[in-house]
Amino acid sequence: MFEARLVQGNLLKKVVDAVKDLVTDANFDCSSSGFTLQAMDNSHVSLVSLSLRSDGFEHFRCDRNMSMGMSLGNLAKILKCAGNDDIVTMKAADDGDTVTFMFESPKEDRVSDFELKLMDIDSEHLGIPDTDYAATVTLPAAEYQRICRDLSSIGDTVVISATKDGVKFSSSGDVGTANITVRQNTTADKKEEQVSIDLKEPVALTFALRYLNSFAKATPLASHVSLSMARDLPVMVDYQISDMGHLRFYLAPKIEDEDGGDMEGQDEA
Amino acid sequence: MFEARLVQGNLLKKVVDAVKDLVTDANFDCSSSGFTLQAMDNSHVSLVSLSLRSDGFEHFRCDRNMSMGMSLGNLAKILKCAGNDDIVTMKAADDGDTVTFMFESPKEDRVSDFELKLMDIDSEHLGIPDTDYAATVTLPAAEYQRICRDLSSIGDTVVISATKDGVKFSSSGDVGTANITVRQNTTADKKEEQVSIDLKEPVALTFALRYLNSFAKATPLASHVSLSMARDLPVMVDYQISDMGHLRFYLAPKIEDEDGGDMEGQDEA
Amino acid sequence: MFEARLVQGNLLKKVVDAVKDLVTDANFDCSSSGFTLQAMDNSHVSLVSLSLRSDGFEHFRCDRNMSMGMSLGNLAKILKCAGNDDIVTMKAADDGDTVTFMFESPKEDRVSDFELKLMDIDSEHLGIPDTDYAATVTLPAAEYQRICRDLSSIGDTVVISATKDGVKFSSSGDVGTANITVRQNTTADKKEEQVSIDLKEPVALTFALRYLNSFAKATPLASHVSLSMARDLPVMVDYQISDMGHLRFYLAPKIEDEDGGDMEGQDEA
Repeated sequence: MFEARLVQGNLLKKVVDAVKDLVTDANFDCSSSGFTLQAMDNSHVSLVSLSLRSDGFEHFRCDRNMSMGMSLGNLAKILKCAGNDDIVTMKAADDGDTVTFMFESPKEDRVSDFELKLMDIDSEHLGIPDTDYAATVTLPAAEYQRICRDLSSIGDTVVISATKDGVKFSSSGDVGTANITVRQNTTADKKEEQVSIDLKEPVALTFALRYLNSFAKATPLASHVSLSMARDLPVMVDYQISDMGHLRFYLAPKIEDEDGGDMEGQDEA
Repeated sequence: MFEARLVQGNLLKKVVDAVKDLVTDANFDCSSSGFTLQAMDNSHVSLVSLSLRSDGFEHFRCDRNMSMGMSLGNLAKILKCAGNDDIVTMKAADDGDTVTFMFESPKEDRVSDFELKLMDIDSEHLGIPDTDYAATVTLPAAEYQRICRDLSSIGDTVVISATKDGVKFSSSGDVGTANITVRQNTTADKKEEQVSIDLKEPVALTFALRYLNSFAKATPLASHVSLSMARDLPVMVDYQISDMGHLRFYLAPKIEDEDGGDMEGQDEA
Repeated sequence: MFEARLVQGNLLKKVVDAVKDLVTDANFDCSSSGFTLQAMDNSHVSLVSLSLRSDGFEHFRCDRNMSMGMSLGNLAKILKCAGNDDIVTMKAADDGDTVTFMFESPKEDRVSDFELKLMDIDSEHLGIPDTDYAATVTLPAAEYQRICRDLSSIGDTVVISATKDGVKFSSSGDVGTANITVRQNTTADKKEEQVSIDLKEPVALTFALRYLNSFAKATPLASHVSLSMARDLPVMVDYQISDMGHLRFYLAPKIEDEDGGDMEGQDEA
């Protein structure tokens, strides 16, 4: 059987809320090492990868490897019924066709259990190769979210250019053009405002804002987000889940713009 | 003539907001003992009963019994114009066809008066027999509201089962099944978190969630709500209005489910 | 060239948000004395007049008079990307076809620039004659906003009557009739609650609530709003922008109601 007890139950809610608009149905894979999910988004453009290590749970038992297919929409409906401070326990029999979520309020005066029907979902597990990224930019998650949202009102794509001094997000469209530059700042008074840039070589890649915006739904999960980029390779957008694992998104760059060239010229062409 | 002055004017706003989606037009009955309303909801399934005693008003005068028919939508529009701290005075002549609402701001620098046209509404006053309920569960109004809302995302009906230890709300649907159990707790630190169960005999009844959800619009009126249940009889959902009266809703159970039987089996049938 | 640096950058955002629903495209006129806009609303019923004096900017340079035509919708999209505490700098070349908005965060760790395409807009500059108003009522901007919103749920027009003691807003419609009276109060503890009435002679004028409501979008700009009225002349609704200028709206009264006569009789006619 599988049983996992998570004291910060709302973390699970945040994970599912971050992913459910990208992925409709997905397999959650359980093993003794933890609870993971890997799925392409519905349009097969981006990849989501969740990893929650077993040692991050208060209690974790998984007798044999299991793959549990769930509708993320239904799962979100159920998790929405958990209080913010509730402890969440997941349970499934080895050969069952349901998974049970139990929510306990901290004062123990309220207990809920929800049984979700499991689904058979075809999926292939893609290997994600270790990549030697040219640049990794770590910035406040809320800042990343806001930049993506702001640029969406200007254009459909963004060029992200990382240099030693900062990272520039550029977009253009009918309204005009926009450039937002965030400078490295590792001495900010508040740790949550720090911006760090780890650069081997400058890199500039173009992405569809629609996906970057969708990834930003993970903002409540972490104070910071890291963007790791290398020429011609998918960006990795990485939200660390404290003491437990991570939620990562991968998105391939738009090749025609890989040189980070003149956005205006390109749009007017 | 009729004249009633209510220092907590926003109480009237809360009452009308709680009822206006259930009942479109209704007669408010005034007598020397107070201000009452009794009406079936628009689909004639549930019953609303409001009672505000005359001694809860700062000033109350009703020379002879009157029945004032009002559009609750229009009344809500007018009451929305009252500030939260405004004193509300209602006035009507014995033979008039309007009722006037006067709003005074606490600092007396703003006075508004709104005249609402009265309507002729046919209504029969139903006697509500005194009932010897098998179980009365009193729980925080916000908790009741949340449970009804949460279960609505799972199914259309709820089985409410009261036993000595607690009250269980169960629902099921395409997503799966849900059980929320609230335990008796009369020693909670905060009085507003207390849950009490007054039980003569265990009872389990099935109700349409749609109506229970609608009743929950009265949540701002009271810290707690009481559910009084007896086999085969309508549940009474009772919000006490402090020092003044109550707003009560009655809803008949779904008979086919009166035994509180296996919800899953029933839904799959 | 034109260059203007505004430390309270969000003031510009508030101005554009206040005007963009009334006016789709407009010319901003720059001269050495400041930055102004004058435009009829889209239905040519009301007039908007903005004036920001050059001395209110931290830095202001305008080598020669310029008229910059902008889509206010696109401008609002761009200004929405500025942080609330950002410093905003506008720049335009004398013969360019774009204007650039630069946003600097107070901590200087984020800089954005947005380039907006300029438009050719035909406009005639209307002279606004100096008027000797019969009455000027100054009341809290939030109070004005609320009165207009509240009366909109009752009727389409409002009669504003100013007398020595107070100003009365009256409306009527299917629901019934409403009168909201705000009394002069120049000794309120909090300055932002003061109401003053400067009266040469009593005046009562009728206006379309739709426009008064739209003007109220300027509420975030100022603590108070002044309504200046004279018989048969447009009301001036004036929001002072501290130390910089003003945003004013002009709306002609409905002539048939200029005597502030019996609203009920008129509506029933």
